[in-house]
Amino acid sequence: MRLRIDLAYDGTDFRGWAAQPGLRTVQGELTTALATVLRVPVDEVQVVCAGRTDAGVHARGQVAHVDLDGVGEDDLERLTRRLNGVLATDARVRRVAAAPEGFDARFSALWRRYAYRIADDPSVVDPLNRGEVVVWPRRLDLDAMNAAAAPLVGLHDFAAFCKKRPGATTIRTLLELWWLRDEAGIAVGHVKADAFCHSMVRALVGCLVAVGEGRRPPEWAGHVLTAQQRDPSVVVLHAHGLTLEEVAYPPIAEMAARAEQTAARRVSSEAES
Amino acid sequence: MRLRIDLAYDGTDFRGWAAQPGLRTVQGELTTALATVLRVPVDEVQVVCAGRTDAGVHARGQVAHVDLDGVGEDDLERLTRRLNGVLATDARVRRVAAAPEGFDARFSALWRRYAYRIADDPSVVDPLNRGEVVVWPRRLDLDAMNAAAAPLVGLHDFAAFCKKRPGATTIRTLLELWWLRDEAGIAVGHVKADAFCHSMVRALVGCLVAVGEGRRPPEWAGHVLTAQQRDPSVVVLHAHGLTLEEVAYPPIAEMAARAEQTAARRVSSEAES
Repeated sequence: MRLRIDLAYDGTDFRGWAAQPGLRTVQGELTTALATVLRVPVDEVQVVCAGRTDAGVHARGQVAHVDLDGVGEDDLERLTRRLNGVLATDARVRRVAAAPEGFDARFSALWRRYAYRIADDPSVVDPLNRGEVVVWPRRLDLDAMNAAAAPLVGLHDFAAFCKKRPGATTIRTLLELWWLRDEAGIAVGHVKADAFCHSMVRALVGCLVAVGEGRRPPEWAGHVLTAQQRDPSVVVLHAHGLTLEEVAYPPIAEMAARAEQTAARRVSSEAES
Repeated sequence: MRLRIDLAYDGTDFRGWAAQPGLRTVQGELTTALATVLRVPVDEVQVVCAGRTDAGVHARGQVAHVDLDGVGEDDLERLTRRLNGVLATDARVRRVAAAPEGFDARFSALWRRYAYRIADDPSVVDPLNRGEVVVWPRRLDLDAMNAAAAPLVGLHDFAAFCKKRPGATTIRTLLELWWLRDEAGIAVGHVKADAFCHSMVRALVGCLVAVGEGRRPPEWAGHVLTAQQRDPSVVVLHAHGLTLEEVAYPPIAEMAARAEQTAARRVSSEAES
């Protein structure tokens, strides 16, 4: 039986999603929790997620799947409760459900949506959200950042914003990239794409912040993109401002087809999804 | 020169507002920071606040005043920056301004507004706000809680919801008390009064949560109020769900009159404002 697990975590004390020996990771903690609660060996639990977040990156809308025997549909609320009993409070399972036919947390996903949060004025800094909001010492011009962002949206080779990995494509469809202040005055960057390569959101944000500060003109972002190679003047911004907010999947009837199509395109790639 | 200081803090690691020897408090930290930055002895810095929050209670909209010599109006942005440089990141000064004539952070205040936040369903629990949201194991009926809250609004003796203090009045004007789910599904209690006595908000919330769970009928809250004595079946809920959101002051012309009027009524009282 394949289970879909919706989860959220405060990335502060995790070394990212992917399990690494001796390090505390979300995949590692979730795998251990599943093995403990279901009394199965850890190596029989293979958890796959939609967005392999880096060290320090948070998630509100992470989605994972796992294949497990002996779990009934009636047990899922109890399983949610027991997992949360075992997990530390910086990771919470929000829901466990039977996955629809053909569902793959990674390859069925239509898009991932991240938010990047910046407090660029002392009057909007809030100690209660300091774990997920970057404090910036200068005011940002969001209009300039939105002007800079516009030409980045669409199907492009994002090599200029990606950490290179051998054999991995850096072509992605950026669906949305725009900034808005929330009601508390925090500058929030909304970033949505079919998938992201490694450090891509934080490099995009670093590029736009240079524009928002006035250090670069809005056209600069488009020039960086078309150069198609990593520009050392684009800073990869702090991990703790970044949160995976949502992952979207197609209607059930199209689930398997979507997974096959994506896997065929990207299965050999080690690109961060 | 009297300064108005707007500040915010994560109450988790503070033993409340009021300075206590050997304990980490907001008043203590702010006093030390002011003394350090302005190079004056600590005992010359007397910081007075609008809402003396308990241990573990947070603030986004705390207001304080302090009387200091030798600070010019031109220095205030720099003072804000330097205070934030000295303070730990769980307390932030949002603004320092010259206080208007007659301003008293405590006695000029027209009202204080608190919020109490509860996640009453696993699907809305968010590890990123776990420091300020109480996780509740059962769903709450906010309609029942709002029905229970209605008769509490107005000028009443809130002795039933207050920790008794000798010589302190427990008569308050409760201006608002209502519950609404925010966009993330968190149950948020909005509580506004001219002033509060000690533990009053958390006792009000404890009473309403008993109604929201269905353990008590909505009429119970009104009965508790009219009994006018501490009811042991009313639980004072966890401090970490409570945040001081806002303090309101009258127009400048009425500032001094308001302070005199409030002080005359409450100066001898040790009631938490």
